[in-house]
Amino acid sequence: MKKQIGKTNALYPSLTTILGTTINGRPNFITIAHVGIMNHGDPQYLSFGVSKSHFSNQGIIENKVFSVNIPSRDLVVETDYFGIMTGKSTDKSSVLETFCTEGYEAAPMLKRCPVSMICKLARTIDFETHDVFIGEIVATCADEEVLANNKIDISKVNPLLFDMSSIQYWSLGEPVAGAWNAGKVLKKK
Amino acid sequence: MKKQIGKTNALYPSLTTILGTTINGRPNFITIAHVGIMNHGDPQYLSFGVSKSHFSNQGIIENKVFSVNIPSRDLVVETDYFGIMTGKSTDKSSVLETFCTEGYEAAPMLKRCPVSMICKLARTIDFETHDVFIGEIVATCADEEVLANNKIDISKVNPLLFDMSSIQYWSLGEPVAGAWNAGKVLKKK
Repeated sequence: MKKQIGKTNALYPSLTTILGTTINGRPNFITIAHVGIMNHGDPQYLSFGVSKSHFSNQGIIENKVFSVNIPSRDLVVETDYFGIMTGKSTDKSSVLETFCTEGYEAAPMLKRCPVSMICKLARTIDFETHDVFIGEIVATCADEEVLANNKIDISKVNPLLFDMSSIQYWSLGEPVAGAWNAGKVLKKK
Repeated sequence: MKKQIGKTNALYPSLTTILGTTINGRPNFITIAHVGIMNHGDPQYLSFGVSKSHFSNQGIIENKVFSVNIPSRDLVVETDYFGIMTGKSTDKSSVLETFCTEGYEAAPMLKRCPVSMICKLARTIDFETHDVFIGEIVATCADEEVLANNKIDISKVNPLLFDMSSIQYWSLGEPVAGAWNAGKVLKKK
């Protein structure tokens, strides 16, 4: 039986990321799970919806570059901390060790995160309460431990998946079936 | 040890959805996992990146409305089929039973999907190869079986998570910790 449940956003779970930026010369990090993939190609564009009330927006707009760090399950405490504390009043720069790449010093990355991307700000889409930052990926770096043949093994990344209904982080389960493959059985001969 | 792996998109897994639209009077469905959450609020905006080569774009642009269906794991074969066959040459309207809501007949939904949203087209963001359709949620309906206190229980939805690296659908695992809560232990007293 179908039931109407208002205008509920059911586009969950979404991937939990930590954006790194620099504000007033200091690294700052914020947890963002309202993310998106715009296209598939090169340039590759990703979206990050950040409430205008946050401190990080200023750093992204000024530097036009930011990092996107993918935390593993074992970083759930630090990840959540980056989301509940504001950089306006809390120095989050030394919670986890940082590193950066030459030319992108304003996009500090987190060593403990198994995968990080550096994004150039390509566009900002203005919504009433949110800046949606469209980043173009310029470089990706990963721990060797999560790579197999230079490709990311998502089960080793063990990402945190966010769900707004339960207000919980969830883990990734097991593989179900091959994409662009499982449906072939329905093709008519 | 960190390793550079080019401009790899590491924003996976992403949620697998099936967009429903009407083209030339016939329901059509396409699997889209390049999705995003723009904001948190009302109106609530979601993004869907659809290659301009696809048949569905025409229906979304003409009708300015579409459905977003969330398939469960048990629909992996049908879900993948909607992604590998094109509506240009294949009638996908009778693969699964459809239904619609009054006033939104051009946004056919799939009965077997436990959750469906109807979206009005709010904006289209133009990328070189992709139309990114920004939908505003106007209504959500769900099977009673996946609801608890009128809220969606994501473990009962049992969604399909897409990963481009392994080219596989993955399942959801177990809850890890409470959001806006787990990080409180790091707060200084």
